[in-house]
Amino acid sequence: MAKPRATLGVDLHLEPAGPGVRRGLTDALREAVRTGRLAPGTRLPSSRALAADLGIARNTVADAYADLVAEGWLTARQGSGTRVADRTVSLSSLPPPRPRVPSRPAYDLVPGLPDLATFPRAEWLKAARRALTAAPNESFGYGDPRGRAELRTALAGYLARARGVRADPERILVCAGFSHALRVLAAVLRARGARTVAVESYGLHTHWELLGDAGLRTVPLPFDERGTDPGELTDQDAVLLTPAHQFPMGGTLHRDRRAAVVDWARRTGGLVIEDDYDGEFRYDRQPVGALQGLDPDHVVYAGTASKSLAPGLRLAWLVLPPDLVTQAARAKGGSDTCGALDQLTLAEFIASGAYDRHVRAVRLRYRRRRDALVTELARRAPRVTATGIAAGLHVVLRLPPGTEQAVLRAAAWQDLAVHGLHRFQHPEAAVEPRDGLVVGYATPPDHAWQGALDALCAALPE
Amino acid sequence: MAKPRATLGVDLHLEPAGPGVRRGLTDALREAVRTGRLAPGTRLPSSRALAADLGIARNTVADAYADLVAEGWLTARQGSGTRVADRTVSLSSLPPPRPRVPSRPAYDLVPGLPDLATFPRAEWLKAARRALTAAPNESFGYGDPRGRAELRTALAGYLARARGVRADPERILVCAGFSHALRVLAAVLRARGARTVAVESYGLHTHWELLGDAGLRTVPLPFDERGTDPGELTDQDAVLLTPAHQFPMGGTLHRDRRAAVVDWARRTGGLVIEDDYDGEFRYDRQPVGALQGLDPDHVVYAGTASKSLAPGLRLAWLVLPPDLVTQAARAKGGSDTCGALDQLTLAEFIASGAYDRHVRAVRLRYRRRRDALVTELARRAPRVTATGIAAGLHVVLRLPPGTEQAVLRAAAWQDLAVHGLHRFQHPEAAVEPRDGLVVGYATPPDHAWQGALDALCAALPE
Repeated sequence: MAKPRATLGVDLHLEPAGPGVRRGLTDALREAVRTGRLAPGTRLPSSRALAADLGIARNTVADAYADLVAEGWLTARQGSGTRVADRTVSLSSLPPPRPRVPSRPAYDLVPGLPDLATFPRAEWLKAARRALTAAPNESFGYGDPRGRAELRTALAGYLARARGVRADPERILVCAGFSHALRVLAAVLRARGARTVAVESYGLHTHWELLGDAGLRTVPLPFDERGTDPGELTDQDAVLLTPAHQFPMGGTLHRDRRAAVVDWARRTGGLVIEDDYDGEFRYDRQPVGALQGLDPDHVVYAGTASKSLAPGLRLAWLVLPPDLVTQAARAKGGSDTCGALDQLTLAEFIASGAYDRHVRAVRLRYRRRRDALVTELARRAPRVTATGIAAGLHVVLRLPPGTEQAVLRAAAWQDLAVHGLHRFQHPEAAVEPRDGLVVGYATPPDHAWQGALDALCAALPE
Repeated sequence: MAKPRATLGVDLHLEPAGPGVRRGLTDALREAVRTGRLAPGTRLPSSRALAADLGIARNTVADAYADLVAEGWLTARQGSGTRVADRTVSLSSLPPPRPRVPSRPAYDLVPGLPDLATFPRAEWLKAARRALTAAPNESFGYGDPRGRAELRTALAGYLARARGVRADPERILVCAGFSHALRVLAAVLRARGARTVAVESYGLHTHWELLGDAGLRTVPLPFDERGTDPGELTDQDAVLLTPAHQFPMGGTLHRDRRAAVVDWARRTGGLVIEDDYDGEFRYDRQPVGALQGLDPDHVVYAGTASKSLAPGLRLAWLVLPPDLVTQAARAKGGSDTCGALDQLTLAEFIASGAYDRHVRAVRLRYRRRRDALVTELARRAPRVTATGIAAGLHVVLRLPPGTEQAVLRAAAWQDLAVHGLHRFQHPEAAVEPRDGLVVGYATPPDHAWQGALDALCAALPE
C-alpha cells in the first residue's frame, strides 16, 4: 500500500489516503531536517504546491507544516513562507535531540480542550492593540500578586452578571490556569494545617495528584444517580467540587445538595472549592449560577479562560473569601506571575463585549456538534446512551457492562484518541463499576470532525 | 501652603508645586470615586483641560489618571477618554475595599527596574500580530512545560550569539520571571536531597527567602575587593552567583574565580546557578560571556526579559544541564504555565532583530544616564565614590563610614526612594561593614530623572 515518492529530495512513504498521510509526511520532513538533508533556511514549497505534487489534500500539508513549526523544525513567517529553522547553535557536545512529540492519532476526542481553531485571533489582536495603547507605564513593572486591577475589575463585573458570583476585584486572584490556582490553594490549606480534601468520585487524576504532592490526602465522596453526595462531609478540611457541571459525568449538583455543602462549610469552617471550568456552556436551559453566590465567605470560586477561549492563554481566576486573599497572594509568589499584557488584553476583551460575543458564537458551534453527535449515535450505535449532554464540551457514552476496554481498543484501531470512564474514577471511590467513554466533542477542528465521528461510531458496539 | 480648589465637584487640596501635587490629586480623585461623589461612568476632563484648570503640569494629571487606572478606580479607553470605572458588583456584604497602593514617593531610584516608559509598544504589537497570524492552532492548547519551541529556538540562537551560552532549545525552560525559575530549581534541588546553597554576601533577600522557604539553607561566600571568593565552596549542594555583574556591587567575577567555581562543580557534582539578570548592559568594554559556556553540564544559566524589556512580561529562561531537564519541567508543572502568545511574540521579536535593536537603543539611553549621574556626583557630592559603573542599570555609591542611615533619612525627606547597601547584605555574611546606596538609575521616567538626581544629591553628604 505504501508508495515511495521523491519530493524536495525527501523520500516520502505515504499511504494514498487516510490518517496515516499526515503523520507520514510529518515524520519524513522532520527526519530530513534532523539529518540535515533539508538545510537550515531552505524554503519549502507552499502547501498548495506540495499538495498538488503529492496528490494529497492541501490541509494535510498545512497541518504537517504547522506540526513541524510547533516542534521548532520549521519556521513560518508572513511574507517569507515556511523555512527550515536555523539552528545556529553547535550541538556537537550534546546528545542529538530526540523527537519531542510522540506521533498523534488522526482523530482526537479526548475531553478538556475547546476547538483551538476557534480562537478569535483578529478580535484578540484588536483588544491587544487597545490594551497596549492604554496601558499605564507601571503595568510593565512588577505587578500586584493578585493580577492586574483592570482584569480583576472586568472579571468581577462579568462573573457577577454571567455566573452569579459575588465578586469584588480586591478578592480576585489571577492565576496561570486552574492547576496553578489549585496549587496556590493547596499551599494555603497546608499552611493552615489542613490534611484532607474531599473530592468527587469522578474527576481528574492530575488534580488529585497535585493535592497529594502538596501533602493533602484526597477522600472521594459517594456518587449516585443524583450525582455527588455531600452527606459524608465531616471533618475534611476542604471539598473540591464541580457543582455546575460535574466533570466528567455531566450532571448538576442538586439544589438540596448545594445547600448541604454550604451548611457543612459554615458548621465546620471547611473550605469549598468550586471548579467552574465550563460554566459558560449550557445548551438547554438557563445557566446554573455559581455555588459561591450562596456563601462567598466559605466558597472559593475558580473560573478559567481555558475552555471559553484557549488554554494557551494560561489565565484563570479565583474569587476568594476575604480571609484568604493575603495568604493566597503570598502563596502565588511575591509579585505577579502572569504576563501583564495578556491580562490587560483579556480585560479589554471582556469590557468591550468581545468575550460575550465569542462565547455565544462558540456555544452555538458546540451545540451543533453535540446535536450531530447525539443524532449520529442514535442512528449508528443505538445501544449506547449519551449522558451529560445538557452542557459543556463533552458527553459520557454509557457502554454495556464489561465492554469499555474492548471499545477503547477498537478506537485505537480506528486511530481515534478517546478516554474511558474508568480513567476518571478516583482510586478509592466506592462506586458501582460504570463502563463508558468520555467524548470531548469540541476538540477536533472542523475538517476532522466528521472523520472523528465516523471513527467513534465504528469503535462502538453496534 | 495648601489651597483648596473645587473642580469636578471634588475638593482638591494641592500644594502649588513639587512632588506632593500628584499625590494630592490622586488621593482626592480616589476618595471622590470611592465615596461615590464621582459616579461610575462619569467622564473626566482631559488631562490637558484639568491641568490648565488647576494650573499644574499636564504630566502630573496624566500620571494621577494612570495611577488610578492601574488601581482600577478609573478606566481609559481609546476614543472614550478617562471615566470612572463601573463597579457593577454589590459590595454591601463585604468590607469596603482599602486603598491598595501605599502612596509612592515622588522620586524612585530603587534598583531592579528598567525605565518602563521605554517598553517598545509599537514594535511589540507588530511582533504580536505576526506571531498571532503564524501561530499553529495547537499553540492555543496546553503546551510543553518547557515553553514554546519557537521561543526556545530563538533564545538558543540569541544566547549563543550574544552571551556565549551553549544552548540547545531542548534544554531551555521558559519561566515566569527569575523568581519562578529559582523556585523551580529549588524544588529540583530539594528532590535530589540538597540542603545548602552557597550564595554571595551581597544579593537579594527575596532570593534567599525563596530558597529558605523551599527548605534550603543559604550560606554566604566571602566577599573581598576582588568580589565573591569561591574558595569556601566545599560540600554545599549548589551555588547561586551573578558572575557577569555582581548584584548589587557591580563587579565581574575574576577569570581565576570563574575557573575555580567550575572546578568545584566538576569535583563535587555541585550545581552552579548563574543569574545573568542584566548581561545585555555593559558600557565600557566587551560583554562578559556566560560562565555556563565553560561547562554546560554543571552550570544552569538563567536569563530574563525583565531588565532588557519589562518585568511585566513575566518571561525568563533557564538553560539546563541535560540531566535536569525532565525534573525541572516536572517541577514547573504538568503543562506550560506561561502564556503562549507572549512567548510567540518574544520569539518573533528576537527573530526579527527587534530585540537587538531595542537593547542597543536602551543601552545608549542608560549609558547617558549613568554618565550624567557620575558627572553630577563628581560636582555636587565629591566625597561619594560611584562604583560598579561599567555595566547594568544601577551603581553603588560608597558613603563615609557610619553615614548610611542618615543619608537614607535625608533621602526620605527629599521624597526619594532609594535603598541602602546594608539591605543587600546576607544576615550571616562575614564582611566588613560597608556604607552605601544602591542607585537604580534606569527606574525614573525621563521627566522625573533630573528631579531624582537633584533629590539624590541633596540627600548625600556634601
